[in-house]
Amino acid sequence: MGLNVARQLVAAHLVEGEMRPGAEIALRIDQTLTQDATGTLVMQELEALGVRRTQAEVSVQYVDHNLLQADERNAEDHEFLRSACRRYGIWFSKPGNGVSHPTHMQRFGVPGQTLVGSDSHTCAAGSLGMLAIGVGGLEVALAIAGEPLRLRMPEIWGVRLTGSPRPGVSAKDVILEMLRRHGVKGGLHRIIEYHGPGLASLTAMDRHVIANMGAELGATTTVFPADDAVREFLAAEDRSADFHELTADGPYDVTDEIDLDAVEPLIAKPSSPGNVVPVREVAGEPVSQVVIGSSANPGFRDYAVAAAIVRGRQTSDAVSFDVNPSSRQIFADLTRAGVTFDLIAAGARVHQAGCLGCIGMGQAPATGRNSLRTMPRNFPGRSGTREDSVWLCSPETAAASALTGKITDPMSVADGLDVVAAPATSSVNTDMLVPPLPEELARQEKLVKGGNIASLPDFDPLPDKVSGPVLLKVGDDISTDEISPAGARALPYRSNIPKLAEFTFTQVDPQYPERADKSHFVVAGGNYGQGSSREHAAITPRFLGLRAVLAKSFARIHWQNLANFGIVALEFADEGDHDRIEQGDELAVTDFRGQLAGGAEIIVRNVTRDQDYRCTHRLSERQVEAVLAGGVIPQLANRTGDGS
Amino acid sequence: MGLNVARQLVAAHLVEGEMRPGAEIALRIDQTLTQDATGTLVMQELEALGVRRTQAEVSVQYVDHNLLQADERNAEDHEFLRSACRRYGIWFSKPGNGVSHPTHMQRFGVPGQTLVGSDSHTCAAGSLGMLAIGVGGLEVALAIAGEPLRLRMPEIWGVRLTGSPRPGVSAKDVILEMLRRHGVKGGLHRIIEYHGPGLASLTAMDRHVIANMGAELGATTTVFPADDAVREFLAAEDRSADFHELTADGPYDVTDEIDLDAVEPLIAKPSSPGNVVPVREVAGEPVSQVVIGSSANPGFRDYAVAAAIVRGRQTSDAVSFDVNPSSRQIFADLTRAGVTFDLIAAGARVHQAGCLGCIGMGQAPATGRNSLRTMPRNFPGRSGTREDSVWLCSPETAAASALTGKITDPMSVADGLDVVAAPATSSVNTDMLVPPLPEELARQEKLVKGGNIASLPDFDPLPDKVSGPVLLKVGDDISTDEISPAGARALPYRSNIPKLAEFTFTQVDPQYPERADKSHFVVAGGNYGQGSSREHAAITPRFLGLRAVLAKSFARIHWQNLANFGIVALEFADEGDHDRIEQGDELAVTDFRGQLAGGAEIIVRNVTRDQDYRCTHRLSERQVEAVLAGGVIPQLANRTGDGS
Repeated sequence: MGLNVARQLVAAHLVEGEMRPGAEIALRIDQTLTQDATGTLVMQELEALGVRRTQAEVSVQYVDHNLLQADERNAEDHEFLRSACRRYGIWFSKPGNGVSHPTHMQRFGVPGQTLVGSDSHTCAAGSLGMLAIGVGGLEVALAIAGEPLRLRMPEIWGVRLTGSPRPGVSAKDVILEMLRRHGVKGGLHRIIEYHGPGLASLTAMDRHVIANMGAELGATTTVFPADDAVREFLAAEDRSADFHELTADGPYDVTDEIDLDAVEPLIAKPSSPGNVVPVREVAGEPVSQVVIGSSANPGFRDYAVAAAIVRGRQTSDAVSFDVNPSSRQIFADLTRAGVTFDLIAAGARVHQAGCLGCIGMGQAPATGRNSLRTMPRNFPGRSGTREDSVWLCSPETAAASALTGKITDPMSVADGLDVVAAPATSSVNTDMLVPPLPEELARQEKLVKGGNIASLPDFDPLPDKVSGPVLLKVGDDISTDEISPAGARALPYRSNIPKLAEFTFTQVDPQYPERADKSHFVVAGGNYGQGSSREHAAITPRFLGLRAVLAKSFARIHWQNLANFGIVALEFADEGDHDRIEQGDELAVTDFRGQLAGGAEIIVRNVTRDQDYRCTHRLSERQVEAVLAGGVIPQLANRTGDGS
Repeated sequence: MGLNVARQLVAAHLVEGEMRPGAEIALRIDQTLTQDATGTLVMQELEALGVRRTQAEVSVQYVDHNLLQADERNAEDHEFLRSACRRYGIWFSKPGNGVSHPTHMQRFGVPGQTLVGSDSHTCAAGSLGMLAIGVGGLEVALAIAGEPLRLRMPEIWGVRLTGSPRPGVSAKDVILEMLRRHGVKGGLHRIIEYHGPGLASLTAMDRHVIANMGAELGATTTVFPADDAVREFLAAEDRSADFHELTADGPYDVTDEIDLDAVEPLIAKPSSPGNVVPVREVAGEPVSQVVIGSSANPGFRDYAVAAAIVRGRQTSDAVSFDVNPSSRQIFADLTRAGVTFDLIAAGARVHQAGCLGCIGMGQAPATGRNSLRTMPRNFPGRSGTREDSVWLCSPETAAASALTGKITDPMSVADGLDVVAAPATSSVNTDMLVPPLPEELARQEKLVKGGNIASLPDFDPLPDKVSGPVLLKVGDDISTDEISPAGARALPYRSNIPKLAEFTFTQVDPQYPERADKSHFVVAGGNYGQGSSREHAAITPRFLGLRAVLAKSFARIHWQNLANFGIVALEFADEGDHDRIEQGDELAVTDFRGQLAGGAEIIVRNVTRDQDYRCTHRLSERQVEAVLAGGVIPQLANRTGDGS
């Protein structure tokens, strides 16, 4: 019997372990992706690890997050990244070249290869038949150093698609349908693989939309086959030679099916991508902002369909209609084809190519006013506005609502739309992608560190006894946006841990950073740390004294980041214990090092209430060693190795 | 004998006084302009004054400064302004519709009319033969209330133009030539009027460039005749009916002449618009950022000529090439004509239409790295970077330098350029200009005040004895950017005086706000308060206890703002006294009220050094009354008036 696409990809890159769900495996990594909000730390880690030059076939550093440049810090980070790329043999995608995910797909994506990226939406490249996994920055640094990626083998979840979407319905509604059915925890410990006859109605860029937001289901990644749609995509990018066919030939661990004909326009209500309802159920809600763009709807057609809806008309006086081109290349194509003109004429504020409002770098809405966005996430405060009201939808729903100033079912405007077709050949222009320097030149390059680049703090080993208060108790689905916020105030400090730490948990508890002056615990519900890959959500609480999190369950990337930075992730054996602990209780773990090394069970004592809680950890032996050392960096520093 | 254009404009609007240079006159105001960074305060002032509805023929509120929306505050200011426009019968130009000055010129400018605006570059409308004067917000509020504008009759400075600029030289170089000759104080107490055969080579938008930056010479305003160039401009805007011919027919108080053929490419070095040198003298300096846009180079041709220079080539890897469309309409024209495509293809980061980096809202360069901008000002820190290095130049110089990554004389690329011509008819589209409500509906509108809109603080009357330390001593040419900074950190607090006050003088002395806990003085050199019209530069120091400034001389708008908010502007009778005072000295003025009311001379005692300084003030009787009351608002509040 053959293998499904996901297992074929794993098998072709397996360097350790066996492909049994739950078993630790190690995969050879072909490509790496970093973006600027996480990449400055990756480059500092490469320096700390003594890495000489990337060992991956292709490593690319994008600058797409910190583009506002409210003061000198963003520009200085860009200069630092540029110098690090010259030093380490990494491609540098200049500010303005666009969002990493569509750009990587267009210029570097190769079916059959593996990619790790320090961005949770790295999985978008699964649209091309890549095994593309979002991880913490340190994992990317290790991949750049030539280390394999270690993870637990996920289950493969086959989702069979049939039919084709009706006019007014598009790929975004398909992934919202997945979120409606399965919620934000539905994909944990799984790879989602789409297959079936319905694939024929989805272009590679449509698949990007679906693969991208697989992250919102908590999935390890998403894969599509490399079929004719991928062949056509690469041909349009003048990269036919990179095409390799890759199709499924085996069964799935879990299955589901979606009839695309039956999918209707959907929308995620504030403030979770899992709060999905049909658009018709919320039609009429007033809207004050509509934003088109981001890696969740990056393709030519996403803009072209919006333009077709607003063409010759005017968006509502009450609405700010913001358009974020996803990449320089796509913006050039849209401009040449007249789509940009149509959008401007209808009242669009057209912004530079980049992530922008998706990560709260600008475009923050007024408090409590509804903002409709084609973006992947609407976690509380991610928009930059503390009490925001952000909805996620397709470009069709967004454009239809921009016209009326109310949430509007796009089925009302779907008939007879004259959508400009994407050009058969893209405006391929790689001039904003600065290639790596040859090794002999690279070696002479120095890192350019502006005043905002602080060195990584030192992390001490795990003490044998850890005691301290429960400084914070939270519920389910706490996202990394709530742990270490994005947004224009915090993001410029992503290279400066002591400063960034002042923002830790402030979205849920503004006083946390002040109270956090010593060793302490956090207690959480399920799916703790969902969302982005930012390792800052582990580093900054660690910097403030967090030693262990007790939760019902953890999101994948954050769980790994916690281990990498020496915070013990403990799961309640009895989830009811969550209710027995109150914020402020004094906890203690004695013989913590011995317990960790001895097995999966850890006893946590509640000194205040005179109770004991049985917890488990899921750390591998390798991870236990790192946690005992205080994290991977001190662990590696303890060795004398020089890196590769 | 006839009159020059400036005197014709004054004569046609004179309601009090006589046209003798230095005499106080009062002018009827036809139009008002406000932008969002100053306009929120104007609307609060309208509320405080009890104004019912604008009495001007046309009042327009633009949203062009605070566009980044790093958090909810910008968007909430926009909602506040929208509601105030509905309430007071004012046009609302939506965020994204563009920079006030070119937009006002295209849609509202009428030769022969008067305009006041709470933006120092309001003078740009002089390009059409308007008398357009930048003033503090309170002056605009009074004009909206139907009050005439009071000012001292300026001298009229006739500048005769001959010849025509060579390829590679454009209007920006002409105004830089004026700054090279006369410096940033050269236009004080003057209206600059251009005339002569050289006018034939300058379109109305070219004249906008020259009129706009008349503000940098300190001039009250700049005027051009309304001739065929203006007729053509209004025809292209579908507004031929608004044309009225207006040509000079009389002598000037002061004269100068520029042979346009002899003008060469010029550039203003950091950090003053007056530091002008030929580009060739500084050619070769490395450049890390180039920005095209702003009200100083807003026209179609400014982008088209830059595009012609970079077309088919690529800007330097080391350069961020930023393009800020000046208005939605111009951006639409550029996009339709293919210019936008050329710029994107050459590596441009194309931003939303607005002021952006010109006011330090984003686009901040790295510390100490050279940024070349087509903008009007490069005062220290205005870019948002404390230790910035900003140069001002033409689009030709900017584009040529973007290609090489070094300051480059555009004469090297000027020959044979294929510049796309501006369309004979503009993309007229007024849909982002929300018209005023009819009066009966307007009356029912309520102001929408988000959490960031703080009420204006109360200001107490001038005490009879003022004593306190010289909290700050500065030199010549201190700009309002140094008194109350622009930039992305401070600007969102423009509606919140107590918060904004924390930024006062921090560009020159970060500790000033902390030290300022009581009544105090500031000592300054010449041209104190040059630059923008922001009345915040008077209000925030006043809020912190500033009661009098002793200076060698004052810039016009700031001088007026000081009087409006109850700070006494005193000029040294002996400029040498500036050197006799040290920061920290204790000063005292006894019988301050009596001295002010009694005449122009004020004696200031230096208690620390046992010295007396003879100072003069130039306040009119009306202004003395306002200063004694603590400012115009308490003065008017003392009356029972209901406003108009």
